[in-house]
Amino acid sequence: MTHTADPQPPADAPVGTQRTKPVEKHRAGRLPGRQDWRSWPHYQAAKAGFRGYWYPVCFSNQVTGKPKQVTLLGEKIVIIRDQGRVYALSDRCPHRGVPLSCGNQQFKGTLSCVYHGWTFDLDSGELVAAITDGPQSPIRGKVVQPTYDVEERLGMVWIFVGDGEKPHPIDDQLPEELVSNPAVLGARIQPREGNWRFACENGYDEGHAKFLHRTALWRMFKPMPVWNITQIVQRGRWIYRTQTEQHWDADYPGVGTWTSRAWYKAKPPKDPKQVSNIGNTGPGKDPNPVIAAQEFPGFASVSMPGVLRIVYPSFIHYEFYVPVDENDHLYVGVLAEFREGWKVLPFYAKYLGWVRWLFHGQFSGQDKWMVEVTDAPPEKLYRPDESLLKWRKLAEDVTEERLEKLAADGIVPAEPRV
Amino acid sequence: MTHTADPQPPADAPVGTQRTKPVEKHRAGRLPGRQDWRSWPHYQAAKAGFRGYWYPVCFSNQVTGKPKQVTLLGEKIVIIRDQGRVYALSDRCPHRGVPLSCGNQQFKGTLSCVYHGWTFDLDSGELVAAITDGPQSPIRGKVVQPTYDVEERLGMVWIFVGDGEKPHPIDDQLPEELVSNPAVLGARIQPREGNWRFACENGYDEGHAKFLHRTALWRMFKPMPVWNITQIVQRGRWIYRTQTEQHWDADYPGVGTWTSRAWYKAKPPKDPKQVSNIGNTGPGKDPNPVIAAQEFPGFASVSMPGVLRIVYPSFIHYEFYVPVDENDHLYVGVLAEFREGWKVLPFYAKYLGWVRWLFHGQFSGQDKWMVEVTDAPPEKLYRPDESLLKWRKLAEDVTEERLEKLAADGIVPAEPRV
Amino acid sequence: MTHTADPQPPADAPVGTQRTKPVEKHRAGRLPGRQDWRSWPHYQAAKAGFRGYWYPVCFSNQVTGKPKQVTLLGEKIVIIRDQGRVYALSDRCPHRGVPLSCGNQQFKGTLSCVYHGWTFDLDSGELVAAITDGPQSPIRGKVVQPTYDVEERLGMVWIFVGDGEKPHPIDDQLPEELVSNPAVLGARIQPREGNWRFACENGYDEGHAKFLHRTALWRMFKPMPVWNITQIVQRGRWIYRTQTEQHWDADYPGVGTWTSRAWYKAKPPKDPKQVSNIGNTGPGKDPNPVIAAQEFPGFASVSMPGVLRIVYPSFIHYEFYVPVDENDHLYVGVLAEFREGWKVLPFYAKYLGWVRWLFHGQFSGQDKWMVEVTDAPPEKLYRPDESLLKWRKLAEDVTEERLEKLAADGIVPAEPRV
Repeated sequence: MTHTADPQPPADAPVGTQRTKPVEKHRAGRLPGRQDWRSWPHYQAAKAGFRGYWYPVCFSNQVTGKPKQVTLLGEKIVIIRDQGRVYALSDRCPHRGVPLSCGNQQFKGTLSCVYHGWTFDLDSGELVAAITDGPQSPIRGKVVQPTYDVEERLGMVWIFVGDGEKPHPIDDQLPEELVSNPAVLGARIQPREGNWRFACENGYDEGHAKFLHRTALWRMFKPMPVWNITQIVQRGRWIYRTQTEQHWDADYPGVGTWTSRAWYKAKPPKDPKQVSNIGNTGPGKDPNPVIAAQEFPGFASVSMPGVLRIVYPSFIHYEFYVPVDENDHLYVGVLAEFREGWKVLPFYAKYLGWVRWLFHGQFSGQDKWMVEVTDAPPEKLYRPDESLLKWRKLAEDVTEERLEKLAADGIVPAEPRV
Repeated sequence: MTHTADPQPPADAPVGTQRTKPVEKHRAGRLPGRQDWRSWPHYQAAKAGFRGYWYPVCFSNQVTGKPKQVTLLGEKIVIIRDQGRVYALSDRCPHRGVPLSCGNQQFKGTLSCVYHGWTFDLDSGELVAAITDGPQSPIRGKVVQPTYDVEERLGMVWIFVGDGEKPHPIDDQLPEELVSNPAVLGARIQPREGNWRFACENGYDEGHAKFLHRTALWRMFKPMPVWNITQIVQRGRWIYRTQTEQHWDADYPGVGTWTSRAWYKAKPPKDPKQVSNIGNTGPGKDPNPVIAAQEFPGFASVSMPGVLRIVYPSFIHYEFYVPVDENDHLYVGVLAEFREGWKVLPFYAKYLGWVRWLFHGQFSGQDKWMVEVTDAPPEKLYRPDESLLKWRKLAEDVTEERLEKLAADGIVPAEPRV
Repeated sequence: MTHTADPQPPADAPVGTQRTKPVEKHRAGRLPGRQDWRSWPHYQAAKAGFRGYWYPVCFSNQVTGKPKQVTLLGEKIVIIRDQGRVYALSDRCPHRGVPLSCGNQQFKGTLSCVYHGWTFDLDSGELVAAITDGPQSPIRGKVVQPTYDVEERLGMVWIFVGDGEKPHPIDDQLPEELVSNPAVLGARIQPREGNWRFACENGYDEGHAKFLHRTALWRMFKPMPVWNITQIVQRGRWIYRTQTEQHWDADYPGVGTWTSRAWYKAKPPKDPKQVSNIGNTGPGKDPNPVIAAQEFPGFASVSMPGVLRIVYPSFIHYEFYVPVDENDHLYVGVLAEFREGWKVLPFYAKYLGWVRWLFHGQFSGQDKWMVEVTDAPPEKLYRPDESLLKWRKLAEDVTEERLEKLAADGIVPAEPRV
């Protein structure tokens, strides 16, 4: 099925290409299947990210007593560590709009604006002193700066951005296997251009890796399949890409044959139906016991608010797509192995020796490039994009449910927001 | 005649200057003659260029099997050479909006998108394979990428941008003498800032050269006239500036005398009526036979869609003003001599030795500067601007005729577009 | 009093912070006291500066026979010196919009446009010749370029930007003591980012210096008070900050104590009521006789259109905030001592030795930083901002009066402009 049956009116084609060839066969801009995103109104509206989630913003060791500005879902936030704990406040002094992250600490447990010394309690956000107006300043206690809930997990600082509801426990949102098992991690955080949705869609995209990444050094000795037959399966809050066939060669009528195999690459299985859903190069070695115990229905899975999980026999790779604003996101790549004690040492050697540079570096850099140049909608989807459609539907349904709950609790108005 | 009789309502003057001096003699912003471009609606609308023409985009040897992006009339186009021939397609993959110029060739006669391997036939634009969806991909043959007609002439690649009509032969559009005579060429292509119309108007402008270029090294040993009497004459699709008087000195009442003559410059004729319309420094040596045979009615001529021809006794200089988009254009300068065989060798010595650096370089760089800083309308025209007015009228009339023909053929709607 | 009684409807809070914490105590965006600038409509409208004033644009020695462009209140102006006198004209040739500042002088008392030699009389703005159209050009005398009144004072060039009225004498606008007494000056002109109003408000701001500048090298050996009790007093066209109490230590309940005193800094007076309004560190040495004679009611004063005066016993520091456009301003800092003859020599040693680098440099650089990051409205004012409110009111009232006078003279329409 090519997704051509969408009943929505066709999006306006760009003027230039539309006018170029008005003859029938050239009317690409008007073909059925040309999609906008009206089918997913919450997803369409979530340019700057979905509210109601915890997001990682930096490594824990990057937060000290010197205030630091981060931008998350378009909101500027100042974070600072005081007596071991990390605090987060809206980074705009209500007095004259100067960033509090330009400020400094004059008293324990507070942060003072650099301009006039307005001093806020880090925990409550309350204005506890306006230094330059003296101890009896009438404004003291009459201003409260918005604050954010903060947690530290996986060596990173996480901030909850919501609509005023009580945050859910962060462990409910992390990949389950990371919460309940000891693991060793290698991670990379990189600011990237492009909307976070293109990054997430790129990550979960069934089709691109086989073609785009076939040239990556990370895959130098392993071929990529040419095409798969894949089903999207939901289990809990994750949806999985479950492969039922993998084809390693193909002959395109009137065009030619194509494969990513080479004499120096591993030999894939001969039978297209001999597939594995741990790793993507056919059945591999026995998986790590923790990974095996998860019985993942598929190699690649995704969950809200944009978390990708790629399962290999000996490790799992995660990507967190953190919305900075409508135009930028943070790429957070995490490689986890489930081992402890002295066995973590070879992991560090492997991660710092090559995984970081080849996988979190050059391979992921190809994705970075695509996210920068993707420009949709309009778009024209094909069969493997079933993965994108299911991800958008997941985001849409989960958000609908969340907003209904917030409305029932009286936190947001009951009428549809979008 | 100063062009003060234009019956159109005065354009709004810029706020700053308008408010500066409200007294009568300072109301420059409200004087009759302040012009906007409403008299030439097609010309006014053609910010990004006139459709229905061939435009040069680069040298032929710049197009190889590696795809290359060019922008023409605001449209992004990928060009690629396959088995000797150059092809051009709209440079946006309809799947997810990635530029096809990021892609590469996987099969002869095709171009594949770098992201998912969507593979388009270069000639027809048809999607002949979606590599990562296998040979039976249902989308195969259901998508057609817009294509552009391409020709190679004068060592350059030319693309036709129209509204869906069958392109006219490119030779109908090139300067006639270049089509029918052997010539040797020296050319320079340079991306420049500024709207293409300012570049074209600068080129054909009767008034500026005498003052702006008097300091150019190219004119070090030749004076410039101070002012001319000029008539604009149409012959075929060209309009010519025909000079009937050239004045080499002038005495401005209450101001002083002015000339560009100097002891080290050639002596111009004494009689203002002793003028030549080949070259601009009076009657020169016998012209080249091909040039003489053209019997050009004037030194400088212009034709649609923005082609300038400056005729000297031994060579002709052409400028093609190629609209990139509303803000940028491509300057294409071509110097042609009508010789062949071993006689082309001294031409190359002359062109590469000094013409390229002085004429296509520093002299033309003065025009580049003016195009960057010109900011009209509003404008207040003077007598020599008859040349601009006639050029605008030519553009207007030719476009009116073209659109009527397209409407008669049912290619564009009959109602006025502008 | 915190300025919470403003009856105007609350400004819309920024979306991000507003939605973050809807619970009552976090509704910072909705608290009374959130201010926009609707109370001061003329001030709000004066983004690009107040018209009807003289503004300094550069040092006198920066203006020669080579034309120079300056931007003032958003208007581009060309200035040039001819036979000793400075002239200013609107810097856009009415012909084709090219800046006259690209041009040059072809005849005494005129300026010619570089493009076609349109030649304007510097004094009247009249088009006295269009060189490339010959002496009988019909456009001669039919175009008048707007001009500006110019004066030279304090070693600088001043331009009057108004609405067509006759300018008032510049000496009526300069600080009185500079007009009537010999003085020696050290000055710095620096283009700065940010709206001129933030620069002016920063300069006259009662609250910021004590906190922001406590770290400046200029104050290394002098403490700053912690907080003052201040009244704003008007005398003539200036409003003064009159200090009645200065506190050098403070104990903030539940937070801690704070002071800027240190063992290596001068000792301030013990009695908070022992204050001086010459200098800000208590009663100092006997002031210079000229300064004493002014009997200034306060240390810091401001007048239209944005002139700050800070009085010390031996010198006065002025800041002129010159609007370039809505986003940029010119900082003009002037240090004056009232001495003459050989006594000016030690002044130059002091100014060039350290005042220029510490006061007009690093100290003023802290203000520059704040002006760049200030982002108001919305704003939430506190007690010391009485100084800002009075300044805005002064600007509002003076402008109201000016416009009524212009309307009475028939120069601007009688209906309210704002």
